[in-house]
Amino acid sequence: MNSSIIRFILGNVLKTEAVLLLLPCLIALIYTEREGIWYLPVAAACFLLGLLMTRRKPANNVFYLKEGCITTALSWIFLSFFGCLPFYLTGEIPSLTDALFETISGFTTTGASILSDVEALSHCSLFWRSFTHWVGGMGVLVFLLAIVPLSGGSNINLMRAESPGPSVGKLVPKVRYTARILYLIYLGLTITEAILLLIGKMPLFDAVCTSLGTAGTGGFGIKNDSFTSYSPYLQWVVTIFMILFGINFNAYYLILFGKIKSALKMEEVRYYLLIIVASTAVIFLNILKIYESAFDALTQSAFQVASIITTTGFSTADFNIWNETSKVVLVLLMFIGACAGSTGGGIKVSRFVILFKTVRKEFTSYIHPKSIKKIQMDEKPIEHEVVRTVNVYIITFTVLFVLSMLLISFDNTDLVTTFTAVAATINNIGPGLEMVGPTANFSFFSPFAKYVLMFDMLAGRLELFPLLLLFHPSIWKDLFAYKRSEHSFKKRHKSV
Amino acid sequence: MNSSIIRFILGNVLKTEAVLLLLPCLIALIYTEREGIWYLPVAAACFLLGLLMTRRKPANNVFYLKEGCITTALSWIFLSFFGCLPFYLTGEIPSLTDALFETISGFTTTGASILSDVEALSHCSLFWRSFTHWVGGMGVLVFLLAIVPLSGGSNINLMRAESPGPSVGKLVPKVRYTARILYLIYLGLTITEAILLLIGKMPLFDAVCTSLGTAGTGGFGIKNDSFTSYSPYLQWVVTIFMILFGINFNAYYLILFGKIKSALKMEEVRYYLLIIVASTAVIFLNILKIYESAFDALTQSAFQVASIITTTGFSTADFNIWNETSKVVLVLLMFIGACAGSTGGGIKVSRFVILFKTVRKEFTSYIHPKSIKKIQMDEKPIEHEVVRTVNVYIITFTVLFVLSMLLISFDNTDLVTTFTAVAATINNIGPGLEMVGPTANFSFFSPFAKYVLMFDMLAGRLELFPLLLLFHPSIWKDLFAYKRSEHSFKKRHKSV
Repeated sequence: MNSSIIRFILGNVLKTEAVLLLLPCLIALIYTEREGIWYLPVAAACFLLGLLMTRRKPANNVFYLKEGCITTALSWIFLSFFGCLPFYLTGEIPSLTDALFETISGFTTTGASILSDVEALSHCSLFWRSFTHWVGGMGVLVFLLAIVPLSGGSNINLMRAESPGPSVGKLVPKVRYTARILYLIYLGLTITEAILLLIGKMPLFDAVCTSLGTAGTGGFGIKNDSFTSYSPYLQWVVTIFMILFGINFNAYYLILFGKIKSALKMEEVRYYLLIIVASTAVIFLNILKIYESAFDALTQSAFQVASIITTTGFSTADFNIWNETSKVVLVLLMFIGACAGSTGGGIKVSRFVILFKTVRKEFTSYIHPKSIKKIQMDEKPIEHEVVRTVNVYIITFTVLFVLSMLLISFDNTDLVTTFTAVAATINNIGPGLEMVGPTANFSFFSPFAKYVLMFDMLAGRLELFPLLLLFHPSIWKDLFAYKRSEHSFKKRHKSV
Repeated sequence: MNSSIIRFILGNVLKTEAVLLLLPCLIALIYTEREGIWYLPVAAACFLLGLLMTRRKPANNVFYLKEGCITTALSWIFLSFFGCLPFYLTGEIPSLTDALFETISGFTTTGASILSDVEALSHCSLFWRSFTHWVGGMGVLVFLLAIVPLSGGSNINLMRAESPGPSVGKLVPKVRYTARILYLIYLGLTITEAILLLIGKMPLFDAVCTSLGTAGTGGFGIKNDSFTSYSPYLQWVVTIFMILFGINFNAYYLILFGKIKSALKMEEVRYYLLIIVASTAVIFLNILKIYESAFDALTQSAFQVASIITTTGFSTADFNIWNETSKVVLVLLMFIGACAGSTGGGIKVSRFVILFKTVRKEFTSYIHPKSIKKIQMDEKPIEHEVVRTVNVYIITFTVLFVLSMLLISFDNTDLVTTFTAVAATINNIGPGLEMVGPTANFSFFSPFAKYVLMFDMLAGRLELFPLLLLFHPSIWKDLFAYKRSEHSFKKRHKSV
């Protein structure tokens, strides 16, 4: 394994984080907050370590999917570790475990919080929390690919490891330009949302943080009641933008280049919108009696459906007290998730579409045993390879889910809490039901359970394999074996 | 589709049921119970209808998997409908829906009851309840295959549709002998259990009913407290026999013919036993504090683990009050289920073994992209076909599970009740948690929810496809199209 290139990229990630950490300092300057000072030493440490790691250029640029996975997993761990330090140093989150939980929750765009009083945080820390969503939503490595000219042709393996969905394609032949286009669309949508929020008379700081959190489908609120106290107009703007950020970004690319018809034909997007409409309708009918007006019920159901399916996790209602059918629908949406290639989490609509098509094909084969038809999506046949990977993904997901539930159950919380705590973290949503419902938080869990949930958040965001691969013994053997061989290679060269 | 052979076999099933219905009459004679009289007209009706349906021999014997599935599904529906009439006619279960629920629960070896006072039933009805477990455990069509000489060579398709597991093999080249061997092993084990129970001073009637219920991994008790009041010796006998009936019957066949080594090598059986030992250990440690002695805790944990993994559903403890880790383990066991080719339900250990091997292979392919190794089980490569079917099975299972949860949620019971009610019926277990826990019953559900759960029980027992295939529109078109073509064929022949 090529460990020198892994080191090199990790170094670049740290340097990037150093720059990102300066933004909260700026906010602190504006609001003249003392807490901002603590972001500087962390930024400096990141930068120095990054510099140290990128001092030597990698000996060779060979870069496979394996390296892509390892780099991605390690990047996210490094990113989260350094990202949590300011919370701890400012004393705003006195426990390091909690600070790490909050930061991982931020970068993975989960939005599960351990804070009971969000409004007590300084502006700079509130901003940093929301900003981690934005960085994590599209991916820090995709960002890196967009700005740093990495040599070596296999950068797609890095993007593939970080981007969500069963199959990652390039929009344009060059990975670098693909990454740039993605970030430009992302930025454009974020700014549009902020402007619309400002028009609705939301204060600037709120509008910025909300837009960052929506864009990454994160869900950290800056108010203790999340989104409950904002006006219906603002709630609808956020509803619509949550849905937009859950759409496969390829659709925007197609629209930008005038191929609106192709964008409208994308099967995944159509199913995604269909699910949203259907779920909203079911919940609307189900909660109609609880609310004063039909408009109220519609606003509430649409907001919650959009928030859960896109795995954002903002809330305008305590759905914990809704009746069972609505809860079951929301729990299902937790698993479905957004579109592949969006900033949302969950298992992804496209995976389900592929699975449904497999089942339909199987039934047809019972009735017409001789028919041989390949499953199609967007009028293109789906490779057997992709179907297999989707199946393996679901199985691995289930195994991790079940193991996590077992480990969390040592905390002896009720089954619904245990189940939805894991569901809300592994699918990067945020709130669950009962003790982790929208009005509650995750602070009561034991440190052990918190680490399990942190693992789930990372595993969910990175779509399992990159993180789980870290636990394969041969990876570590490989890493060190390579170092040794590189070393002995140099030695041999010297002696010659 | 060959609808005449379907009719013919259905007729035979009804004739068989007519004979089986005489057994409770015999019990009624022994205990001089009036209720027994009602079993006679039902038996007569079954016999007459069966006679009518078998009067004409089928025109041709062509018989594919499709016909096998349809026959199996319809057989079980007919069987359950006629089987429930005595409960209704005797007035012991005054609602027809409830009587049908109880009977489907019996034949599918679920053991979920709508009765709150089981001990109020007559002996003949208690016997019939337990006897449906025994018949349903090994399968009525397998029984038919063993006794009725069905012409046509494709009987394996009938067996394949009724027997549980991802791939059904014949023990010996002839299906008929395979079916006979299976039933002989089944009968032998049942009698052995009854004798051991009698040695433990259990009354004869109790011993017979318990053995029938254990053998089919059913779970209907004849006492209101299920198995709580029996002695530890009796509890251990039942524990061991539940485990034995959850083992793939191929193992017994191998042992009978002296191939003990091959039997011990069966991977599925080894994993099955391993899971039992591990789960018992976890629960034992978890409940140790609740019970007076370690022996007590061991008895309780082993009994409950065996009862749930084999999907029997007897209980000696209200595990509803155990703590969360134990509950999570039990819920997991609900889904794992017993071995393929046993009388147990659930998803089956072998399916999980295959899935795990698929995942392991996928991880290896990340690390060694060029390795091409087929997954093996029992030292034989697993066909790609089987892996695909297992995947499709799990997906279909999940879809049915989720839909059922949604439909049940209209009853507005809490999430854990909704979830475990579906889990306990679709996996043919019996008790769930909370409102459907071991000390409760299913009577409070609305009729609509009861029909959904009945469907789940049948779908679970028949492993989904046979029952779901009934809903494929082309099946009904085919059925009638064939009739028409048969008719016109005869007409044409006459006119010639």
